[in-house]
Amino acid sequence: MWATVSSLSHTDPGGSVGPVATQRVELFARDSPLVLESGATLAPVEVAYETYGHLNGDRSNAVFICHALTGDAHAAGYHDDPERPGWWDNIIGPGKPVDTDRLFVICANVLGGCMGTTGPSSVDPATGEPYGLRFPLFTIRDMVAVHRALVRHLGIARLRAAIGGSLGGMQVMHWAMDFPDDLAAAVLVCATSRLSAQNIAFSAVAREAIMRDPNFHGGDYQRIGARPDAGLAVARMMAHITYLSEEGMRNKFGRRFQNGTTPRFGFDVDFQVESYLHHQGEAFLRRFDANSYLYLTRVMDYFDAFGDMSQAGPKLERLTTPFLVVSFDSDWRFDTSHSREIVQVLSAHRVPVSFREISSPHGHDSFLLVIPEYHRTVASFLRRAEARPAAMPAEVR
Amino acid sequence: MWATVSSLSHTDPGGSVGPVATQRVELFARDSPLVLESGATLAPVEVAYETYGHLNGDRSNAVFICHALTGDAHAAGYHDDPERPGWWDNIIGPGKPVDTDRLFVICANVLGGCMGTTGPSSVDPATGEPYGLRFPLFTIRDMVAVHRALVRHLGIARLRAAIGGSLGGMQVMHWAMDFPDDLAAAVLVCATSRLSAQNIAFSAVAREAIMRDPNFHGGDYQRIGARPDAGLAVARMMAHITYLSEEGMRNKFGRRFQNGTTPRFGFDVDFQVESYLHHQGEAFLRRFDANSYLYLTRVMDYFDAFGDMSQAGPKLERLTTPFLVVSFDSDWRFDTSHSREIVQVLSAHRVPVSFREISSPHGHDSFLLVIPEYHRTVASFLRRAEARPAAMPAEVR
Repeated sequence: MWATVSSLSHTDPGGSVGPVATQRVELFARDSPLVLESGATLAPVEVAYETYGHLNGDRSNAVFICHALTGDAHAAGYHDDPERPGWWDNIIGPGKPVDTDRLFVICANVLGGCMGTTGPSSVDPATGEPYGLRFPLFTIRDMVAVHRALVRHLGIARLRAAIGGSLGGMQVMHWAMDFPDDLAAAVLVCATSRLSAQNIAFSAVAREAIMRDPNFHGGDYQRIGARPDAGLAVARMMAHITYLSEEGMRNKFGRRFQNGTTPRFGFDVDFQVESYLHHQGEAFLRRFDANSYLYLTRVMDYFDAFGDMSQAGPKLERLTTPFLVVSFDSDWRFDTSHSREIVQVLSAHRVPVSFREISSPHGHDSFLLVIPEYHRTVASFLRRAEARPAAMPAEVR
Repeated sequence: MWATVSSLSHTDPGGSVGPVATQRVELFARDSPLVLESGATLAPVEVAYETYGHLNGDRSNAVFICHALTGDAHAAGYHDDPERPGWWDNIIGPGKPVDTDRLFVICANVLGGCMGTTGPSSVDPATGEPYGLRFPLFTIRDMVAVHRALVRHLGIARLRAAIGGSLGGMQVMHWAMDFPDDLAAAVLVCATSRLSAQNIAFSAVAREAIMRDPNFHGGDYQRIGARPDAGLAVARMMAHITYLSEEGMRNKFGRRFQNGTTPRFGFDVDFQVESYLHHQGEAFLRRFDANSYLYLTRVMDYFDAFGDMSQAGPKLERLTTPFLVVSFDSDWRFDTSHSREIVQVLSAHRVPVSFREISSPHGHDSFLLVIPEYHRTVASFLRRAEARPAAMPAEVR
């Protein structure tokens, strides 16, 4: 094991990176398309991204944030309203665990997303219409290929770290295995090397909800001016059940009613937990595209980092990137056994790995929350990573 | 505690009750309607039921089977095809744990159901149209009131036992508490005294799937000739995730593909677990009504057997019916803590109760399966119950 993260002093709450703007760049043009793992090509590929902090002179202080299923490039700071910061603002900023006083932080919307990066809602240049389900199916490898192109575009040869929670962690896992020279450190939070049958089952039902919606129109709803909102809301509500723990739901909602103490006996929202899910479903419709939800969940289903050890074994053997793997004890979407499996495989191949299971009642959502032990663990790991030589160790080449 | 169920010799697999027919009886007529807990009245109320075995001379050998959410009156034997027996045929029959050589077994479709008993798909005599959402909201108490009317109709004063799994167990719990003289014994299998926030959440999302389906038409789909099949299938698929355990899904499906060993990379069914869920969703559409699904899940949400102890306490104090409470260690729909809470409350009120947590990888579905320790436990409990005097103990009155 590389190092066991020790107990640390309290993390300074830190400040805000302040106002930021999402930028957009075309990374793959018609004459130099992205060649996907499937062999299909895709162009143009535009990428929406944000950066926080300052790139140092030798371009050695960059950290890449890989977002989860429904995240976007806006990880920190704020656009217009300081009350509505980016989705991981509590961990990224001056004095925060991902410390923008020292680090240059990049976050990009993933390939296939719907928040500025090319995805199924983008216009297919071949038809002038949104791709819909004609968008090629891609893989985690392809998502990482786009991230790497952005990193090169920014003139960075090697990252201090790549950090990701959930699907973000799956991207980091692939990145480290396939391009070990790219990353000086890797942080995986409540991630997995592969979905379980139950994980796939939840994804499958979510997709059924969307694809069976009469307004789905085989994925061509944009062209028709319809939206499979019923299916997408149901998918999101179901997902939120898996993001909270049973205990967390009990503490947060119990069997309490939305209004007063007596049941209203009807099918409208009555219990608080119903109100919460209803709100989550509705809010999601304002910001997410149903086809992106299909593609990104399917990418997760098919990912299997260690599935073929004849391929993965040699990659792991040459991997020297130090890993931090973090799980939460109440997470049942990707429970600790998923993280332990990653740790065991890495350790078996002598990859330096620190593992921490953090106690939290908040389930999978924990990775987005301020949990002091979790933030201290990430902060400490990144400081240790910065203390290591940034240059690639010669023996690894 | 009443008795600890001891280890028993292997249960004889037993025979079949043979061909049976569902019967139908009007139990509440226009001039004597069912008065619901809400104060609303309902008439006519017809009930579909089946019986197995023979009622003895003093009518003291009757057992009532309360079915779960999507069950029906056809619990044992077969209608036309001996290969397609009733849903609990493995536990009911000659020589089986619910032994029709000695017991007269009754099973009825619940109030609000869609398999012969009056429910939201029945015709409202006031309008000549199906009730839809104009069917009154009812409670577990009302379901039990209909069961009791059937028992009286059959000329039975007191039951040897009432037995139920899941929602069936909730009915038995209510029955024993409100009418302790009715039951000489009570068997609750993977039941609960009240749903948790997470349980309600799954129910709520299932109902959203149905009610947001554009073909739902506010519950009037029958009149219009439509069916909210998309929503109902999604609800059923999601429910099935909660009926299997994570381990059970892993063993049964893992990450295996439906055809061959290579992924097909698309949105059609590819993994075996998808195929399973897809099949469950489709099959359900042929036998179940969406409005019944709404009503029966809502009944479960609102049930809270021990919620108001100023009401429940005195009922429990006078309760002498021996209980058997069975849970399964991999059940996460109503996990063992639900059963333990029932056992603790009963024990605290000196109600005789036997409790067994059975080891099984099959999750909530376990109550429907042949698990020898489970079947032996039920068989032993019922034999002990039969050895007790069938007449009501005088001191209980």
